[in-house]
Amino acid sequence: MTIPFGGPPAQPGTVYLVGGGPGDPGLLGLRAARLLASATFVVYDRLSPPEALALCPGEAEQVYVGKLPDRHALAQDEINELLVARAKAGDAVVRFKGGDPFVLGRGSEEAAACVAAGVAFEVVPGVTAGVAAPAYAGIPVTHRAVAPAFAVVTGHEDPTKPEAQVDYAALARFPGTLLLYMGVGRLRAIASALISAGRDAATPVALVRWGTTPRQETISGTLSDIADSVESAGLTNPAIIVVGDVVALRDELAWFEGRPLHGVSVLVPRTRHQAGELSERLRALGAEPVEAPTIAIEPSRTPQELRSALTEVRDGAYDWVALTSVNGVAAVVEEVANLGHDARLFARTRLAAVGPGTAEALAAVGLRADLVPRAATTRELAASLVASG
Amino acid sequence: MTIPFGGPPAQPGTVYLVGGGPGDPGLLGLRAARLLASATFVVYDRLSPPEALALCPGEAEQVYVGKLPDRHALAQDEINELLVARAKAGDAVVRFKGGDPFVLGRGSEEAAACVAAGVAFEVVPGVTAGVAAPAYAGIPVTHRAVAPAFAVVTGHEDPTKPEAQVDYAALARFPGTLLLYMGVGRLRAIASALISAGRDAATPVALVRWGTTPRQETISGTLSDIADSVESAGLTNPAIIVVGDVVALRDELAWFEGRPLHGVSVLVPRTRHQAGELSERLRALGAEPVEAPTIAIEPSRTPQELRSALTEVRDGAYDWVALTSVNGVAAVVEEVANLGHDARLFARTRLAAVGPGTAEALAAVGLRADLVPRAATTRELAASLVASG
Repeated sequence: MTIPFGGPPAQPGTVYLVGGGPGDPGLLGLRAARLLASATFVVYDRLSPPEALALCPGEAEQVYVGKLPDRHALAQDEINELLVARAKAGDAVVRFKGGDPFVLGRGSEEAAACVAAGVAFEVVPGVTAGVAAPAYAGIPVTHRAVAPAFAVVTGHEDPTKPEAQVDYAALARFPGTLLLYMGVGRLRAIASALISAGRDAATPVALVRWGTTPRQETISGTLSDIADSVESAGLTNPAIIVVGDVVALRDELAWFEGRPLHGVSVLVPRTRHQAGELSERLRALGAEPVEAPTIAIEPSRTPQELRSALTEVRDGAYDWVALTSVNGVAAVVEEVANLGHDARLFARTRLAAVGPGTAEALAAVGLRADLVPRAATTRELAASLVASG
Repeated sequence: MTIPFGGPPAQPGTVYLVGGGPGDPGLLGLRAARLLASATFVVYDRLSPPEALALCPGEAEQVYVGKLPDRHALAQDEINELLVARAKAGDAVVRFKGGDPFVLGRGSEEAAACVAAGVAFEVVPGVTAGVAAPAYAGIPVTHRAVAPAFAVVTGHEDPTKPEAQVDYAALARFPGTLLLYMGVGRLRAIASALISAGRDAATPVALVRWGTTPRQETISGTLSDIADSVESAGLTNPAIIVVGDVVALRDELAWFEGRPLHGVSVLVPRTRHQAGELSERLRALGAEPVEAPTIAIEPSRTPQELRSALTEVRDGAYDWVALTSVNGVAAVVEEVANLGHDARLFARTRLAAVGPGTAEALAAVGLRADLVPRAATTRELAASLVASG
C-alpha cells in the first residue's frame, strides 16, 4: 500500500504518539496511516478508531490499554513504562489515540516519559473531536458573524467541587463557542454552573454522541433544558457538548445525519482483504459496515499439484487456463514466482477470466484476459470457451 | 493510488469543503487525499498545503483564490458563486483550505451558499494549526497539571477598536491556554490588552511561524516582552501565538526543530513522478524538498519504430531486451498494450534491467528481470550480457 506523504516507515526504537481523529477512519492522517502500517508494536485505547487498526501488519503486536471512564485497563504509569520498554527493546512503537495526542489526553506525559528515558519520539497530531463532531452535525465552531473563537474544555470534572481545575465563572464569560469533552455525566452541573455565572439560560446547546461515525446522534436544546433532554434520551459518553449560538446553524447545515443509510449497520461477510470496497461504499451512504470474514483464503495444502500443472502450462500442454477469482489469480501468480518464472510462463496458453474483477487482477500482473464470459458463471464460461474454439 | 478509508471518489455536482491541515502534507487526511485525487475542479488559497495539490489529476482545473491578508484574489461572494456554479455545471468540486474548514475561515458561509443553491456538500475536517503547530514546537495545548482547556481565537482583530468582536477582558480570564491565529501584526496590542485585563505579564508566550513545515520557527518570551522579540526578529504571519504555562514544556518536549536538516531547503531536480520518495526522506530529516522537474517524459514522436520492434520481439527476433529506466519500462508496457498484447509478448526473449528500480518496475507488470548488472551503467550491462552468453 503506497500512502502519499506518509514519510518513512516507523523506526525501531522510536515511540510515535499518533492521533487517530474523532472516529471516521477517513479523517486519519496520511502519516498516521503510514506509521500504523509499519509499526511492530501498537498500543491503543477505547477511543482509537478501531477500523484504522486494520492497517497494522499482521505480525504487529496490538495491546489494548483502556480506558473506560473509571476503569483503566492499564494505569498511565504502566502505559508510559510499556512504551519506553518496547522502544528500548527495538520495537517501532505506535501509541494510537483517538483525536489528538495533545488535546485533553495524557500524550504530553508519554512524551515526557520518552524524554526521561532517552527514547526518540514523534507527535502526529489528529483531528480533534470537538471541532469535527460538530462539523458532522452541521455546526461550525466559529462563524464570522456569530463566534470569533471557540474553547475546548474537559467536561469530566465536577464543577461543584471546590478543587475543580476549570473555573466555570471565568469560562461562562468566554467570548465564543464552548466545547466540552466527555461531560455527559456532569451535564446538569455544568449547565447550572454556566447559568449561575451569567451565561444566558437560553443559549443554544447541542450534544453530539459518537460524532463522525455512523452511530452519530445529536440532541439540541438550551442550557436550561438540555440535561433533561439528554437524560430522557438516555445518552451517555463519548460525546461533545457544544454551547453557543453556532448551534442554530445546524438547522441549515446538517449534512451527515441525513444520508440514506445513516444509523444502519450492515454485515459484510467477505474476506478481510475484499471487504474494503463494499465497506467504503456503505460508509459513504451513512451505514456502519461490520466486517465479519466467514471465509479465509489459505495456500493450497497440496501446492505440488498446482506446481506441476504450471510446468505443463509453460510447456504448452494446455490451450486455455481459466481463472475464476481474484484469489485464484493471486495463488497462481505466487506459485509462478516460486517457480522462478514470470508472466511469460503463459506464452503458449490463452487466458480466460470469470468476472471483471478477475480480469483486472490479471491485468495488474501484466496479463490481458483473452476471454471474459458475459456472465460470471461456470456454465457461461464453458459456453464461451466452446464458442471461441 | 489506493488510499485506504478514502471513501468513494468526488462526485459530480458536489462541493467538498476539505481541510488540508496546518502545512505538513503528512497531516492531510485519507478522505481529503482521495477527494483531491478525484476532483475535476479545485479551488485553493494561500494556506492550503501546496504539496497536496500534486495529488490532483493532471486534467483537474486548479484555481487560486487568495487570500493574502488585505488583498483577496477573489472576494468571498465570488468564491461562493464559483463553487456553486461549477458544481451545477457537473464538476466534482474540492474547496481546499488550510487547517479546518470550520475554524476561523469562511467554510460555513460556503456551506450555506451550497444549501441556498440546492447543491450537495460534504465537510472534511482537518487538523487545525492552533493545536498542531504548538505540538511540533513541543507545546501541548492542554496538560493535566497545567491547563485543562484551550481556546482558539482570531488574532486578526485590533483589540483596541471599540467594534472588536473578541472581548479581551473576558478572554484574559479564560482558564487555559490561548491560541491566537494570524495575530503577529496585532501582537503588541493583544499582549497589552491581556495584561490590562489582568493576565500576568510574566505569562509564557510562544509564537510558532510556518508551524509543522520545514520552515517552522519558534520564538518564546512572556506577555511583556514577546512583541519586542518578534519585531526584532522580523517575524510575520502565518503564525500561531500560544499564551499560557504550557509554553514552558517546550524546553523538554521540542522534537521537530532539532532534526538534522531542519531549516535546510534541498532542490530535487527529478521528474515529478520520481521525486516523491527522495522528497519524503528529506522531509523526515527536517529538510524542505523543492521539487523542480528539469526533464519531462513524453511519448516517442516516432512510436512506429517501437511498435515494429515489439512485433519483432514477439516473433522471437531478439535474444535480449534491455530496459534502462523506469520510464522506459512504462513506455514499452504502454505500447505493448496498444498492440493489444500483454507480458506474454516477451516469451521468446530474455529481459535485462539496468538498476534495481527498473527491475522493480518490470516486476510490477509481471516480469522478472533475467539479468540485473551489478552497476547501473551501459558498460556493466554490456559486460554482463557477454558474461551471461
